Amino acid sequence: MKFKFKRKMAYRSRHAPGTAPGTLSVSKDAKPSTISIMGYGPDDVEEVDDISVSDIAVYQKKWPLVWVNINGLGSLDILEEIGAHFDIHRLALEDVLNVRHRPKIESFKDTAFLIMRMARMDGRELDVEQVSLFVGKNFVLTIQERAGDCFDPVRDRIRKGAGRRIREAKPDYLGYALMDAVIDGFFPLLEQYDQALDEMEEVIFSSPSEDMLSHAHDLKKEIRLIRQAAWPLREVVNGYADEVDLVSDDMAPFIRDCYDHIVQIIDLLESHRERSASLIDMYLSSLSHRMNEVMKVLTIIATIFIPLGFIAGLYGMNFNPEISRWNMPETQWMYGYPFAIGLMVACFVGFLLYFKRKDWL
Amino acid sequence: MKFKFKRKMAYRSRHAPGTAPGTLSVSKDAKPSTISIMGYGPDDVEEVDDISVSDIAVYQKKWPLVWVNINGLGSLDILEEIGAHFDIHRLALEDVLNVRHRPKIESFKDTAFLIMRMARMDGRELDVEQVSLFVGKNFVLTIQERAGDCFDPVRDRIRKGAGRRIREAKPDYLGYALMDAVIDGFFPLLEQYDQALDEMEEVIFSSPSEDMLSHAHDLKKEIRLIRQAAWPLREVVNGYADEVDLVSDDMAPFIRDCYDHIVQIIDLLESHRERSASLIDMYLSSLSHRMNEVMKVLTIIATIFIPLGFIAGLYGMNFNPEISRWNMPETQWMYGYPFAIGLMVACFVGFLLYFKRKDWL
Amino acid sequence: MKFKFKRKMAYRSRHAPGTAPGTLSVSKDAKPSTISIMGYGPDDVEEVDDISVSDIAVYQKKWPLVWVNINGLGSLDILEEIGAHFDIHRLALEDVLNVRHRPKIESFKDTAFLIMRMARMDGRELDVEQVSLFVGKNFVLTIQERAGDCFDPVRDRIRKGAGRRIREAKPDYLGYALMDAVIDGFFPLLEQYDQALDEMEEVIFSSPSEDMLSHAHDLKKEIRLIRQAAWPLREVVNGYADEVDLVSDDMAPFIRDCYDHIVQIIDLLESHRERSASLIDMYLSSLSHRMNEVMKVLTIIATIFIPLGFIAGLYGMNFNPEISRWNMPETQWMYGYPFAIGLMVACFVGFLLYFKRKDWL
Amino acid sequence: MKFKFKRKMAYRSRHAPGTAPGTLSVSKDAKPSTISIMGYGPDDVEEVDDISVSDIAVYQKKWPLVWVNINGLGSLDILEEIGAHFDIHRLALEDVLNVRHRPKIESFKDTAFLIMRMARMDGRELDVEQVSLFVGKNFVLTIQERAGDCFDPVRDRIRKGAGRRIREAKPDYLGYALMDAVIDGFFPLLEQYDQALDEMEEVIFSSPSEDMLSHAHDLKKEIRLIRQAAWPLREVVNGYADEVDLVSDDMAPFIRDCYDHIVQIIDLLESHRERSASLIDMYLSSLSHRMNEVMKVLTIIATIFIPLGFIAGLYGMNFNPEISRWNMPETQWMYGYPFAIGLMVACFVGFLLYFKRKDWL
Amino acid sequence: MKFKFKRKMAYRSRHAPGTAPGTLSVSKDAKPSTISIMGYGPDDVEEVDDISVSDIAVYQKKWPLVWVNINGLGSLDILEEIGAHFDIHRLALEDVLNVRHRPKIESFKDTAFLIMRMARMDGRELDVEQVSLFVGKNFVLTIQERAGDCFDPVRDRIRKGAGRRIREAKPDYLGYALMDAVIDGFFPLLEQYDQALDEMEEVIFSSPSEDMLSHAHDLKKEIRLIRQAAWPLREVVNGYADEVDLVSDDMAPFIRDCYDHIVQIIDLLESHRERSASLIDMYLSSLSHRMNEVMKVLTIIATIFIPLGFIAGLYGMNFNPEISRWNMPETQWMYGYPFAIGLMVACFVGFLLYFKRKDWL
Repeated sequence: MKFKFKRKMAYRSRHAPGTAPGTLSVSKDAKPSTISIMGYGPDDVEEVDDISVSDIAVYQKKWPLVWVNINGLGSLDILEEIGAHFDIHRLALEDVLNVRHRPKIESFKDTAFLIMRMARMDGRELDVEQVSLFVGKNFVLTIQERAGDCFDPVRDRIRKGAGRRIREAKPDYLGYALMDAVIDGFFPLLEQYDQALDEMEEVIFSSPSEDMLSHAHDLKKEIRLIRQAAWPLREVVNGYADEVDLVSDDMAPFIRDCYDHIVQIIDLLESHRERSASLIDMYLSSLSHRMNEVMKVLTIIATIFIPLGFIAGLYGMNFNPEISRWNMPETQWMYGYPFAIGLMVACFVGFLLYFKRKDWL
Repeated sequence: MKFKFKRKMAYRSRHAPGTAPGTLSVSKDAKPSTISIMGYGPDDVEEVDDISVSDIAVYQKKWPLVWVNINGLGSLDILEEIGAHFDIHRLALEDVLNVRHRPKIESFKDTAFLIMRMARMDGRELDVEQVSLFVGKNFVLTIQERAGDCFDPVRDRIRKGAGRRIREAKPDYLGYALMDAVIDGFFPLLEQYDQALDEMEEVIFSSPSEDMLSHAHDLKKEIRLIRQAAWPLREVVNGYADEVDLVSDDMAPFIRDCYDHIVQIIDLLESHRERSASLIDMYLSSLSHRMNEVMKVLTIIATIFIPLGFIAGLYGMNFNPEISRWNMPETQWMYGYPFAIGLMVACFVGFLLYFKRKDWL
Repeated sequence: MKFKFKRKMAYRSRHAPGTAPGTLSVSKDAKPSTISIMGYGPDDVEEVDDISVSDIAVYQKKWPLVWVNINGLGSLDILEEIGAHFDIHRLALEDVLNVRHRPKIESFKDTAFLIMRMARMDGRELDVEQVSLFVGKNFVLTIQERAGDCFDPVRDRIRKGAGRRIREAKPDYLGYALMDAVIDGFFPLLEQYDQALDEMEEVIFSSPSEDMLSHAHDLKKEIRLIRQAAWPLREVVNGYADEVDLVSDDMAPFIRDCYDHIVQIIDLLESHRERSASLIDMYLSSLSHRMNEVMKVLTIIATIFIPLGFIAGLYGMNFNPEISRWNMPETQWMYGYPFAIGLMVACFVGFLLYFKRKDWL
Repeated sequence: MKFKFKRKMAYRSRHAPGTAPGTLSVSKDAKPSTISIMGYGPDDVEEVDDISVSDIAVYQKKWPLVWVNINGLGSLDILEEIGAHFDIHRLALEDVLNVRHRPKIESFKDTAFLIMRMARMDGRELDVEQVSLFVGKNFVLTIQERAGDCFDPVRDRIRKGAGRRIREAKPDYLGYALMDAVIDGFFPLLEQYDQALDEMEEVIFSSPSEDMLSHAHDLKKEIRLIRQAAWPLREVVNGYADEVDLVSDDMAPFIRDCYDHIVQIIDLLESHRERSASLIDMYLSSLSHRMNEVMKVLTIIATIFIPLGFIAGLYGMNFNPEISRWNMPETQWMYGYPFAIGLMVACFVGFLLYFKRKDWL
Repeated sequence: MKFKFKRKMAYRSRHAPGTAPGTLSVSKDAKPSTISIMGYGPDDVEEVDDISVSDIAVYQKKWPLVWVNINGLGSLDILEEIGAHFDIHRLALEDVLNVRHRPKIESFKDTAFLIMRMARMDGRELDVEQVSLFVGKNFVLTIQERAGDCFDPVRDRIRKGAGRRIREAKPDYLGYALMDAVIDGFFPLLEQYDQALDEMEEVIFSSPSEDMLSHAHDLKKEIRLIRQAAWPLREVVNGYADEVDLVSDDMAPFIRDCYDHIVQIIDLLESHRERSASLIDMYLSSLSHRMNEVMKVLTIIATIFIPLGFIAGLYGMNFNPEISRWNMPETQWMYGYPFAIGLMVACFVGFLLYFKRKDWL
């Protein structure tokens, strides 16, 4: 069957309670950090991978807008250098490293700081990954847990985009485009869950198995996980328009569009959630129904044959008919056996009629 | 039975995440677009079907108010021309093509843009179709997924309406009339569901079958679908009065009336939803009851006849009475058989009394 | 048993979707309309039944305050004349005729328009009837679906009330008094439901029958119906004080009192609703318990007698003891039969002890 | 067992709907009213029981502050005199007599009017009694349904309190002290319910009986009753600080403390409510578990012995082995009987292994 | 198994209702109070244990900031002296002693007063302890129920912290650091519950036992307890920033960080709560499934062997074949026995096919 999803759990990287605020700690599962950069202006683009932090300044001078992307949270030194280079608050850096952080938006002086979660299907596994996004005056910085993201279409638009809006626009537009890519990334995911729910709803009536039950519980859990990633995005989108100074007013229709999408996603998620919850009810009612069927068959067979068996047993008793005529005279009748058979048939028919009237047949 | 509904699922037309905002993409299931126009003033009406976009301007000059209706979302070129002609924002056009969009209202400069969903029964199938409505200074533009809508009574009122309000009124009144037609269209639908719920509630007690269960789940699902179409209409109606500049103040009582209707629809839907949810509970409790009945019969029969059968078996043993007087002396008694029968009758009556006291008979 | 209620469904009178706003349509079940009038001042009262619309003006000149009451919504001409006479907005008249309208308050120029629903027990049937109330400068107009209402105590107070407040007061006081009568009318109804719930809670534990289940569902449905009638009254009462200009400030303590009552009714309804919902749970748990009892008896009897029956069957086999001493030698023992009986008794006692330990006895 | 509570239902005293507002009606169960008074100043106290209304004025002159307490709502004349003496609005007096009124606060000119409900355990019965509290410029008036209240500690503090705050303070402090006593009175009650819930949670797993179920439902009902008494107190406490003019500002920390208590009570009640609701779930799941156990035993015994019984029956058939060697040749074998016993043992062991593998043993 | 937690219930120390506000009463279980002090400035630290209240003033003169910690609430005299020394309102002291108080924040003149609850696992037991925190101009006072807390990392930061922020900062920073330590202390706890839930979800499908059910109920209860401790902290953190005057503005990013943490904790708790609730559903559905399995086996075995047993019983009857040829002629047939066996096999195969078709095998 098609509806198997498994969650890739994010590794846990909270440091011990009571440590000083702004303490940066790196999980041992974290991938080493690599930096890639994309500098562009209306007319040209330049992409370089695996640069060092000190190189960034060069590109910043060369291009009106640079997009720095970091994959992997494992190299504390690199992240600290980045923090120093872009003048990022230590508490924000701490949040970047805490990979189970709630999506949020904050604005520090002239930098907007967004935490979001990308959800996608990696084969059959639900993969939820945290992305941190910093939008500054002449740069956009994205920090991801690992390589692989939903930003490729944005990169393509930049590459091929000579003359298009994205090449002429400011960092606020690029920030919006990345946010929009994360949000739109939920749609194909929800469609897959929609199909999985459709399939399960069909199967659960025809052949309810215990596997089904545990699948339904997994689905419910995964939808809850996606909800936790999607719900706070509403505030994030709103905050991007309202609280961030460097977002210009002519971004309004784009952000409203983005907001429409996240509202639609939340609507879909609520509906998915209800459906996944009712799957379990459906399973149980289907099971009840089946149980009822089983019980009926047992009852019919047992009810018919136990009395018949009793009659047979009756005439299997060994009372000695020779001692007196009161002892099992039927066994000595000429039509004793047909009489007994007749009794049984009458009994059988009687029960059949009774069950018919009870509507059990 | 009458309560079979099936949902006609809207075809899915989301484009890939990350594509540029305002990208128009057409689903391959979409019907080709055809344009019809209705131009009218206080004194006369003119209706023409299958015109081209360039013809519209002619009618706009001729009549104080034109209502342009487009059926089918399949012809991207036509839609783009329409967009250009009426000066529609690309993001709005994108929403028109996304046929699973949440109902909403937006106002672009001097055009109000509404998305609504018409729900109706097409035979036994629930058919939910998206309508986009643009209300401008001297035009109303409606774009539907396919031919067939709930606007015919409005068309009739225009046609026959010499001297009536609708012929003299501005586009804001026509916009309201169309919105009202969409909203009122929910009433007959809800009545049909009301009847279906009534029927099912009756049937579920008398003869609960598994079909019933899956029908109940379908009903629940369809009511959820209608709710998703109806709930946001409240905001749409409110927004039409509050946010849209070109809606004049003397429209207030009409819009308040319209608002009353949508509130009533939502009330009905909530009540339908509760009822559809309790259908499943009713099914399960009815089943439990039936199961209890079945178990009682089984228990009574088995409890009575198993001990009787044991007594019969007892005297069917082959211990040799000739070897000693301790071996089954009853079989050699003169009244051994009547004694055994008496034992059985006593046993039978005892159990009957026991069940009577337990209130199982 | 006492707890049988049936709902008298209001006849449905919605006109087709898309018809022009303000279209008046009359249901064919509607009773013909009759007008009665009560004119009074501080010193005297005059009551006349079956007058025509044109007579009203006469009484209005004669008395400082007239209360016009119309029973029946069947005569469209009379209602239109009334609408013209009292200058009532067509949309309000449309609402009066739509007998399933949500309770609401609206103020048109100097007339307040209230829709309420009276709920009462008509024998064993729940009877919910719509009342429309217009409060003007020198008149109060009530329009009911049919004769019979909860206003008789108010009429009595007016008749006997020389020197009392109601005779000196303005229309706002009469309007309040009628509203209060409708609201107070819910109390005896809720008391009846309270008793029905008490009774059912008792019966459901002692003897759960399937009838009980369907009664519980009916109760739940009826309480939902009453809630739909009562909830919006809170806003109506609030609106009467806040939005209606002609309600004077010294009405405040009366309206606050009225508001207290509706809040108390809503509290009671919530509690009734919870109780009616838990009735069904109680039924199911009571049933589960009973089923468990049944199963225990079956298990005890079957578990004891099936093995005993097996032992009996064992010694009922026909292996020939004469052929070898290995074939059923027990049957040839001197104490073979007592041995078998002993075996059975041991088995019986063993099971009894086992069930005792399991706490099933 | 300890967890038996019964509700003493308040007698119902609503007058007929439609009667004039401010109509005072006395329930026939109401106790006759008796007046007691406590007058005090910083230096001295005087307490007198069974005085008449006309005596009150004497004490009011003598003492800076008098606390008049009335037990019993049965004497309409006394209550009307009291109303006249303290200048109480008729609608307030009506509320005092309506003993099922929702807790509330209202301020009439310079008198604050509070309705509260005292809940306590009277032996094993939950006893909910209404108290009305009027706080005026130089008096406090309390009206209770019957003798016996939670004010004794306050009286003691007044009696022994020379030099303490309560003796020097104004009516607003006495009003607060009484309100606080009512609110604190919920704590011991909730502790008793806490214990009852603890006990039931323990018992329900070890020995679920049907009594338990009805106790659980009673508990749930009583907790709902207490909630209805406690919830509105939050607004009452808030209103005492905010809306009542004669409450001085230095009362603020006391009232904040009082508010903390009521919030804590509501928290406890919510937790009690959840627990009482889950009691029923626990009962049902415990029952399900037990049923499962019962079914397993039945199945194991039946499944093992029915086939064994069949084998025994097989060799109990009377086919004549003398007629042909095809008729039951086993009965004539030398080791026929041991063979049959062996067959049975094999069957028995087979089933045991099967059940072992199924994890039913 | 690993998932055993038990709650250490806080001892109850409410004094009788009606006692004067500000009455201090000590529970008899309370530990004697001991005072320790930590005085520090940017350059040095001094820690002393077991000092008396009168010593505190000495340290306050010597150091810019002192942190006084009191373990144990048993010594009323010490607490009253402390109250006098730091000028603490009597109502606040009363709250300190009421160890089941709801977390809250209050500001008295220039002292902020916080009540919080520390939750941690003490071995396998959930241990919830109340901490009161007073933040004054030059002191921080913490009062705990008993020794052992989550403040050691803060102490270490102070000890080793020469030159660090905590040593230079004002009491508002120390207050924040302690609050943050309490809040962060929930994370490891929630992780433990997360693991317990994971384990139980796995076990509940593979082998549902009644223990599991009571564990699930305990888990649910404990999570509710933690929720009650965590929820109000949100307001506490907010209040610390907004309502407390002595908290300076540059604390804002730290408090926002703290707020993010508590929101994340609440999110986790909600998700834990849902999961613990669905554990019970999962248990019940798993049980239902198992029951269904058991029933099927019983039904199959009984349905097959009861009819077979009947056939065997039939030919075990003792009708005398010698008297007439109608009496059990089969027993005299040459192939009578094979015929009977054949009948049984046919019956057996028939049922097998039936069950196959029913999908029960």
